[in-house]
Amino acid sequence: MDTDALTDEVASRFADTPDARLKEIMTALVRHLHAFAREVRLGEDEWFRGIDFLTRTGQACDAKRQEFILLSDVLGLSMQTVAINAGRAADCTESTVFGPFHVPGAPHAEHGDDIARGARGSPCVVRGRVRGTRGEAVQGATIDVWQADDDGLYDVQKTGLDHAQARAVLHSRDDGSFEFRSIVPQPYPIPTDGPVGELLAATRRSAWRPAHLHFMIQAEGYERLITHVFRRGDPHLHDDPVFGVRRSLVADWAVQPDGTARLDFDFVLQQTTSRDLGA
Amino acid sequence: MDTDALTDEVASRFADTPDARLKEIMTALVRHLHAFAREVRLGEDEWFRGIDFLTRTGQACDAKRQEFILLSDVLGLSMQTVAINAGRAADCTESTVFGPFHVPGAPHAEHGDDIARGARGSPCVVRGRVRGTRGEAVQGATIDVWQADDDGLYDVQKTGLDHAQARAVLHSRDDGSFEFRSIVPQPYPIPTDGPVGELLAATRRSAWRPAHLHFMIQAEGYERLITHVFRRGDPHLHDDPVFGVRRSLVADWAVQPDGTARLDFDFVLQQTTSRDLGA
Repeated sequence: MDTDALTDEVASRFADTPDARLKEIMTALVRHLHAFAREVRLGEDEWFRGIDFLTRTGQACDAKRQEFILLSDVLGLSMQTVAINAGRAADCTESTVFGPFHVPGAPHAEHGDDIARGARGSPCVVRGRVRGTRGEAVQGATIDVWQADDDGLYDVQKTGLDHAQARAVLHSRDDGSFEFRSIVPQPYPIPTDGPVGELLAATRRSAWRPAHLHFMIQAEGYERLITHVFRRGDPHLHDDPVFGVRRSLVADWAVQPDGTARLDFDFVLQQTTSRDLGA
Repeated sequence: MDTDALTDEVASRFADTPDARLKEIMTALVRHLHAFAREVRLGEDEWFRGIDFLTRTGQACDAKRQEFILLSDVLGLSMQTVAINAGRAADCTESTVFGPFHVPGAPHAEHGDDIARGARGSPCVVRGRVRGTRGEAVQGATIDVWQADDDGLYDVQKTGLDHAQARAVLHSRDDGSFEFRSIVPQPYPIPTDGPVGELLAATRRSAWRPAHLHFMIQAEGYERLITHVFRRGDPHLHDDPVFGVRRSLVADWAVQPDGTARLDFDFVLQQTTSRDLGA
């Protein structure tokens, strides 16, 4: 049986796909998937273990847990997708993985509010400005922020909690500034009680993410920015299981005279490419 | 952000995997997965549609349905795995895909029994011999056989059925022969009400498998054979959605003077490679 001819036959079966992009993706997927199987000479038992692993990964997903995103994260596919689509100017804030713990419709917070709302951790203040690459202030930017608490859990991972914690949506002021109070992020392990945890254990990989604060920033006329800010000095910066760390995203939560930690971090957005340039 | 460097970083993270084979597989998987994403310049929305598709594929699986095997089948990965592991002598019966409808522990049938047990279809007789490549009869071979009925359904797909239909385990006699009665197989569509059905529809692919009878044959001293026999003249032989058709597996269910169809098919098994050859 000719294994290369079989790949050609499968790829050709997508010839009538009306959507050209879907055809391109499926054809490439088939070629890479078959090339992988041939390269490792995938055994039938190994194939079945793969099927079983993927099945259990799908079944571990529910309204609050997305094990397939976690799998994509630990295989570096999520970060690879971010990197492929980055293409921003060198002076913009770098992107990183979205992660599975964002929740749409988080409560609105005013400038200076404490968004922890009871989440356990050391208090801190986060301040900064949102601006464009020419230094212009970006006012009214929507700033989604979310993080885990001292137990290493996001609010959505807790049972019996009836309100959002350490999660909010703010808006930048006229001068692009924003400020909120929260808790200092701590390192935490990604969920290890599912198939992804088995994979990390079997491959002796660390499940611990370095401490970080998530941001998603959107403003009219600018590309959406999805990123983290990581804590300098965290022992897990070199082996983040989801490959999210970029040097430019590491910053200090400096302890102030009053004992409160403070993070100062500015975000630089890429202007949207004008579609009617010269029209 | 250097996308190649990211792939190297992810691959290197598997360096401490104790099981050398798992390390080889995971490293190759990461490289091929990332190469696929780079080649098509996978968009973030496309990535998410993929995540959602795989999640729903996992969630469509239950005790009686294996949507991930079906996905592997329509991507030709199942047949590619069969082909990679074939490596049999040219005069042995060819293998093909296992499919998702085998059930362990099917009822035992005696030589000549009707295994249809009420399944709807035209009656037929199936006869043949199990032998080795030197022509020797293989006696006492375990012959698992299963098929769909005229409604295109396997017994396990029917609700409220309390016994096996068109499915049995027989044993070859001293001269290697076997015989049973059943129904003539008909073409049928693979299940299209799940994510795999969506994929086939979006890519304008046929869901119809050519009519076939499944066999799994095992005997001491021989490699296990998993195969089908296909009906000659079936209009779907050229575009089997799971890529299982091999020319050598196509045969006639010839109509006899009494109106009953009869399939004659011999199976040739590969001897197990002796592990102490020359020792």
